[in-house]
Amino acid sequence: MAQDKPARRPRAETPKGFRDYFGSDVTERKAMLDAITGVYHRYGFDPLETSAVETVEALGKFLPDVDRPNEGVFAWQDEDADWLALRYDLTAPLARVAAQYRNDLPSPYRRYAMGPVWRNEKPGPGRFRQFYQCDADTVGSASVAADAEICAMLSDALETVGIPRGDYVVKVNNRKVLNGVMEVAGVLDPSDPARFVEERGIVLRAIDKIDRLGDDGVRALLGTGRKDDSGDFTKGAGLSDAQAEVVMGFVSAKRDTGAETCARLRELVGASVIGAEGVDELESIAALLAAQGYGADRIVLDPGVVRGLGYYTGPVYEAELTFEILDEKGRKRQFGSVAGGGRYDDLVKRFTGQAVPATGVSIGVDRLLAALRAKGRLGGEAAGPVVVTVMDRDRMADYMGMVAELRAAGIRAEMYLGNPKNFGNQLKYADKRGSPIAVIQGGNEAETGVVILKDLILGAKIAVSATLEEWKDRPAQVEVARADLVAAVQRMLAQ
Amino acid sequence: MAQDKPARRPRAETPKGFRDYFGSDVTERKAMLDAITGVYHRYGFDPLETSAVETVEALGKFLPDVDRPNEGVFAWQDEDADWLALRYDLTAPLARVAAQYRNDLPSPYRRYAMGPVWRNEKPGPGRFRQFYQCDADTVGSASVAADAEICAMLSDALETVGIPRGDYVVKVNNRKVLNGVMEVAGVLDPSDPARFVEERGIVLRAIDKIDRLGDDGVRALLGTGRKDDSGDFTKGAGLSDAQAEVVMGFVSAKRDTGAETCARLRELVGASVIGAEGVDELESIAALLAAQGYGADRIVLDPGVVRGLGYYTGPVYEAELTFEILDEKGRKRQFGSVAGGGRYDDLVKRFTGQAVPATGVSIGVDRLLAALRAKGRLGGEAAGPVVVTVMDRDRMADYMGMVAELRAAGIRAEMYLGNPKNFGNQLKYADKRGSPIAVIQGGNEAETGVVILKDLILGAKIAVSATLEEWKDRPAQVEVARADLVAAVQRMLAQ
Repeated sequence: MAQDKPARRPRAETPKGFRDYFGSDVTERKAMLDAITGVYHRYGFDPLETSAVETVEALGKFLPDVDRPNEGVFAWQDEDADWLALRYDLTAPLARVAAQYRNDLPSPYRRYAMGPVWRNEKPGPGRFRQFYQCDADTVGSASVAADAEICAMLSDALETVGIPRGDYVVKVNNRKVLNGVMEVAGVLDPSDPARFVEERGIVLRAIDKIDRLGDDGVRALLGTGRKDDSGDFTKGAGLSDAQAEVVMGFVSAKRDTGAETCARLRELVGASVIGAEGVDELESIAALLAAQGYGADRIVLDPGVVRGLGYYTGPVYEAELTFEILDEKGRKRQFGSVAGGGRYDDLVKRFTGQAVPATGVSIGVDRLLAALRAKGRLGGEAAGPVVVTVMDRDRMADYMGMVAELRAAGIRAEMYLGNPKNFGNQLKYADKRGSPIAVIQGGNEAETGVVILKDLILGAKIAVSATLEEWKDRPAQVEVARADLVAAVQRMLAQ
Repeated sequence: MAQDKPARRPRAETPKGFRDYFGSDVTERKAMLDAITGVYHRYGFDPLETSAVETVEALGKFLPDVDRPNEGVFAWQDEDADWLALRYDLTAPLARVAAQYRNDLPSPYRRYAMGPVWRNEKPGPGRFRQFYQCDADTVGSASVAADAEICAMLSDALETVGIPRGDYVVKVNNRKVLNGVMEVAGVLDPSDPARFVEERGIVLRAIDKIDRLGDDGVRALLGTGRKDDSGDFTKGAGLSDAQAEVVMGFVSAKRDTGAETCARLRELVGASVIGAEGVDELESIAALLAAQGYGADRIVLDPGVVRGLGYYTGPVYEAELTFEILDEKGRKRQFGSVAGGGRYDDLVKRFTGQAVPATGVSIGVDRLLAALRAKGRLGGEAAGPVVVTVMDRDRMADYMGMVAELRAAGIRAEMYLGNPKNFGNQLKYADKRGSPIAVIQGGNEAETGVVILKDLILGAKIAVSATLEEWKDRPAQVEVARADLVAAVQRMLAQ
């Protein structure tokens, strides 16, 4: 068949809501994850990498703010009729693994995992459909020592990657206390988990957003609902004003010390058995952390933290960065949450019917990287390669030989592989690569057995301020014997 | 609504064709990838991580053995009607990136990438639908120096991860030579790329499988077709016997030295311009490699290598491991290919209309890992944590304090977090974790300020052969002062 017109060209575009990472974006994230998983390893956690794809039924429906089936995930029907989907977090796959391999895994099973997760959400500024998480969970331990350990580990991980003590706080709370408070106030009867699921979800998500919405915004969501600035209306949980007041009392129950906070919570939960249990657990966690030397400068009890997810059943925790950054409108605000988690005793039960206690944390990798960047804690671009330029097309083998010598000495190096005709383009390329040194050998140099080394970093500095005394005696270009190439490059790099 | 019966439980299963990686599976792969990317970095390549999801139109249809649209990929329709898919390799996304960011990237652009790719194929033994690749490509260089560099780098990468020289060979060939051979033989006229695409694909894939099919199998596929052992018939390229003989002559053109091989190829391509160009390129590649010290013990010219993918336009290369392993039936066979690649000058052109020369290699990560495992080059399980047992439920804080001290000293350690009632279970757990030492402190020990260290590695050895002289004087269990815990554990670990 004759082709009348060329086929339409595909668009060269990252799909909407996705992004590509270049150079130091990749290496800086890797360095951070290596540091975090080093801490996880020291705590006895083992790595697990599940497949990115799960059956939709195994994933379940646990995304916050999502009510409809399959909403929020990327899903497709497989040829054998199973619905498959990309994982939306690392917790649902862990629950599947814990059930699937329950006879082979050690119990308790401490595991860490990291990797991308996918959310089928409307893309927006700073809102991506693929992002990284780095989780650690303990499956099979009902002890609050497991929760305390995760909090300590989270604190260690943050300090290890470069968030200094004082710039973060890990806040700990307990869903059981909130349930106790609701029980005594006659709100959304928490003793029957199947009732008021939706309303309790609204309460949790409202409290979770208190930093953004303020007390009045949360009160509105606890009651009839809230209209936001854009005019969109969010349905409320339907609590009376008095009931909402009880919930707000819980949220603001934090006192100066953990002991005082617990005392205040005991008042609020009154005769509720589940509430008292929750306060007991918080006291145990505080005692276990104190025994390991984690004081209020790192980890605090704070009833204001509830986490938005519905599946938590006990302790919940969140790491907040307390230093200020400028937001997109130039206003100062606290950096906010970079990690969170809690106890979820029913996720494995979905598969097996048997309760398997579990607790764990998820670090928001992109947010933590942004925080390190804001604090100037990242190294920026990696050093570019030494570039061996091509003066004579027929002597490529000689240039490649130089490159091979440099590489064998552990020096990052390459030959210019573009069209060598325009020498200026070669130096522009070296500049764009952040190259520290250009190596030059034309016909004259080859005859006399020398090479020229051009110090591009010094050259750039001199170009900015040519009169500076310190560079007066340091030439930006030297000629060395070909045999001394590697040693001379090493000397120049060390300067 | 009353619930009459509980909801059906989801199956706890990895989706068909997918798998989960535990413990050392993860850390060994990571160590290998770190080593490979270290080599890529030294060669001046920069990391790139594209999104796992691409538009179907950007991915294109370049999978071998696949003819139907969207076949072979996991795809779904997005809400705005775009079809999205999981990437099936790392080359198609690179071509998209090279087109999308062409004004910002350095040219030539050397990049490496690694990560999972997905293929919607029928799962089978050893055939998975998600697997890892680790690629390096140079985009924007028409010079065969770029191809030679990739071959040298591949050789370095294999040696760096632990494949000794002599156990592998990088084979280099050139599609242009095959095209020249076909031209002079009047086979499938290669001067018009749009004609005989299917037949040329059959020829390439047939040659690519010569190790498995043998000469006769390949001849059948070059002719009318081949019936395999199961009775399935694969259509052939329709060449006459004489034409097939010409192709087979090309495949077996390898001689003892690169120079002799090139001489034989020159005979075969006769007056074909494209064929002569191909031989020239092979000679240049050989010269460039020789200048860097890469001889025939590492990299050889071999016309038997053509690669199955249709999009290669010039040099192609493949790394084969030459040592023998036992296959599933206990027969000796060569390990075979672990990496391959070549020059593909038209992939970026799909997007921009402008030709952008490119060349690169993909390492099959899982196969290379399997090879290292077969050679006994992997370390096996990582050391388990020191386990602090729980003798007294009320003294958890004390035990956590011990763990915190050990961790602070850089020792991998944990407290037993399961139900502490049965002490035997705690030791079984430590055993399952590969724990070197169990720390024990009951009431008596606590009173006298001591702890017991149980050497589990020595204990296991003694259990196997209790009479060995060397352990006679080394107790499997020691009592040390609580204050000496860290130092005593360090001593025991160093033994």
